[in-house]
Amino acid sequence: MTAALQIPTSPADALVCRNCGARFPLGAQHACFECFGPLEIGYDTEALARVTRADVESGPHSIWRYAGLLPVGQDASSRVDSGTGMTPLIRADRLGEQLGFTAPLWVKDDSANPTHSFKDRVVSIAITAARELGFERIACASTGNLANSVAAHAARIGMPSIVFVPADLEPAKIVQTAVYGGTLVGIQGSYDDVNRLCSELAETDEFERTGFVNVNVRPYYAEGSKTLGYEVAEQLGWRLPGQYVAPMASGSMLTKIHKAFKELVAGGLVPQSSWRVFGAQSAGCAPIATAFAQGWDVPQPVKPTGIAKSLNIGNPADGPYALDAVRSTGGAMASVDDDEIREGIRLLARTTGVFAETAGGVTVAVLRKLVRSGQLDPSVETVVYNTGDGLKTVDAISDGARPTAVIPATLKGMREAGLL
Amino acid sequence: MTAALQIPTSPADALVCRNCGARFPLGAQHACFECFGPLEIGYDTEALARVTRADVESGPHSIWRYAGLLPVGQDASSRVDSGTGMTPLIRADRLGEQLGFTAPLWVKDDSANPTHSFKDRVVSIAITAARELGFERIACASTGNLANSVAAHAARIGMPSIVFVPADLEPAKIVQTAVYGGTLVGIQGSYDDVNRLCSELAETDEFERTGFVNVNVRPYYAEGSKTLGYEVAEQLGWRLPGQYVAPMASGSMLTKIHKAFKELVAGGLVPQSSWRVFGAQSAGCAPIATAFAQGWDVPQPVKPTGIAKSLNIGNPADGPYALDAVRSTGGAMASVDDDEIREGIRLLARTTGVFAETAGGVTVAVLRKLVRSGQLDPSVETVVYNTGDGLKTVDAISDGARPTAVIPATLKGMREAGLL
Repeated sequence: MTAALQIPTSPADALVCRNCGARFPLGAQHACFECFGPLEIGYDTEALARVTRADVESGPHSIWRYAGLLPVGQDASSRVDSGTGMTPLIRADRLGEQLGFTAPLWVKDDSANPTHSFKDRVVSIAITAARELGFERIACASTGNLANSVAAHAARIGMPSIVFVPADLEPAKIVQTAVYGGTLVGIQGSYDDVNRLCSELAETDEFERTGFVNVNVRPYYAEGSKTLGYEVAEQLGWRLPGQYVAPMASGSMLTKIHKAFKELVAGGLVPQSSWRVFGAQSAGCAPIATAFAQGWDVPQPVKPTGIAKSLNIGNPADGPYALDAVRSTGGAMASVDDDEIREGIRLLARTTGVFAETAGGVTVAVLRKLVRSGQLDPSVETVVYNTGDGLKTVDAISDGARPTAVIPATLKGMREAGLL
Repeated sequence: MTAALQIPTSPADALVCRNCGARFPLGAQHACFECFGPLEIGYDTEALARVTRADVESGPHSIWRYAGLLPVGQDASSRVDSGTGMTPLIRADRLGEQLGFTAPLWVKDDSANPTHSFKDRVVSIAITAARELGFERIACASTGNLANSVAAHAARIGMPSIVFVPADLEPAKIVQTAVYGGTLVGIQGSYDDVNRLCSELAETDEFERTGFVNVNVRPYYAEGSKTLGYEVAEQLGWRLPGQYVAPMASGSMLTKIHKAFKELVAGGLVPQSSWRVFGAQSAGCAPIATAFAQGWDVPQPVKPTGIAKSLNIGNPADGPYALDAVRSTGGAMASVDDDEIREGIRLLARTTGVFAETAGGVTVAVLRKLVRSGQLDPSVETVVYNTGDGLKTVDAISDGARPTAVIPATLKGMREAGLL
């Protein structure tokens, strides 16, 4: 008889209320029984500290190399693996030059994920968890990118899916969800309406076996964004940047990168260092950035407008935590209007070759704004997160992205257009 | 004094006429001075044979890990590196099941490249070569994906670009090229008209310092597709599949995968084995598949129609070589109509989570057709190449990819739509 293969156990050991600190056993719960606050995954810090650089480096070229720091997926056969993660960290010298950087500027390009947004990270973790928790169908409320990713992952493993989106989404995001063959429900309303409906549905008998990745599986789901922090640290040679800029919709992703950096320091995977956190929103939906400017602890809900639809969450669940991450590190937040967003997309494309969706335009435009205002220091190494792909929001810039000339296929045509 | 760092030299040693075998020194030449035949890169086979698996495995996670088998880029600092390559090889069990496979079926998903098509491979090599050859501007004739990639790579390194495309391309491909800020010229005509114009322009004084990646830099450019073969072999654990299916536009890519497999065997990097090559075209532009069916050695030019625009080359330069690769291995070719292409896109998406552009729909639909006709053996391990992203051709399937229902954000709305 041979010894059974030793499968490492999860470092997660509880669900912890982010509000009152109450602890609950790991499961499909997402709100605190004591105070109704949101729950997040708690870890055995000793288990986290046992993870070494060598463990990570010997793993697959995907988010699953960090399984020792994640709540699920320690057993490789349990993973819903779409090859997500280890997206390029691009040295953006030409962008840095235009913005007056003297320190290195980097773009973490998550449009390289399978469905071309960072949502593949959270969905890989959420569906892996949902399957372990016994759910038989997968669902989400989405501003578009999450819909694409949930439908694709479900198709890959043959699990039924039902995805809820605002009916007025960008056409590419509708098509990219519908093509996978799951159920796609367009809602006549905003994302916040969609989200409310999904919270109600999660309580119905009919949806008892349905895991909503960002409702009742949210504590697991949110942890996927930590890999955006781990990867940057590893790609920089196991150290942290001094500043990072991330877009904010619910505010979750920005806070999870901060959490990842803290874990890496605590576990000795990177040297102790300080970093500042910067948050980006669009002027059409800036509840968190407004709260930052006003000195509020909690954002006031707004009715979203504008072209950055993937960021259009008017009532951001993680707003207070994002505010805390930014304020506690001496960072800042800003918002930019639709014209600045378009200019941000073009600036990034023309200097790096990265074609970002509107959310990426928001982030680059906010980067520029914060450098100009002196709030972000161009002499400190900085990472900018591009979270989605320009092909998903082509309509937002198609007016300004036309051919230089349209001509007959002749040298004469070239000459008459001034091209020869 | 320390020893200078040893930079490996290129294994390429000549330009060789594919028609008459005449040899010329490496340079910007692309047609034979003797017979006007097309040139390709010739290698020092002993230099190729010195490359080991360990050399490759210790390299970067990109096409540049195969620099020892490529004509340029041996010196890492010379590379135009966009992080292209090492795209996922996805085990497609659910697709295989639907098609009756008893052997493993794999999808090599090149939509994961930076600009989401396999063209990033050939462009990385071509621009690296163009810079070494002294060109100061980069250009191409394109059916869309090449335009995206050339404009993006040029933007990244700050090199001027001028890109020529048929004016009736898919809107997403126009936007994705224009956003990078180079010159984009829409031509009133077919790709073959565009290509002819570029050949003329390459001979003008005004374009003397312009490298057309697929005209006067073509011998280098074409070699980039070999990495599609190398990667599959390495990802299978250093062995070759028994069958592969690739789409055909000019026919070049299919032949270069075959060339890569032969090199790997000759160099001892994989065990000797046999493989069969299969080629896919759309019914709207099937000059090579027609030549195969008719027993011709050379395709007759056609006027392209149909939704698979990235494959719409009516006068395919590498058609004879593609025919030879398929016939000499006992493979086959087939073509499929627009409805079959759309069904191919949906079938791939619903079983693997991979959203392919129309060219990928062609390949999957041809795979199905060849299995049904008995020409492709479902008991032999098979790799299917998806060369581009569905987000580039959303219009082709948007009619059949709509929400299941559009409803108000209420439980009543869910009930009335039969979803609760």
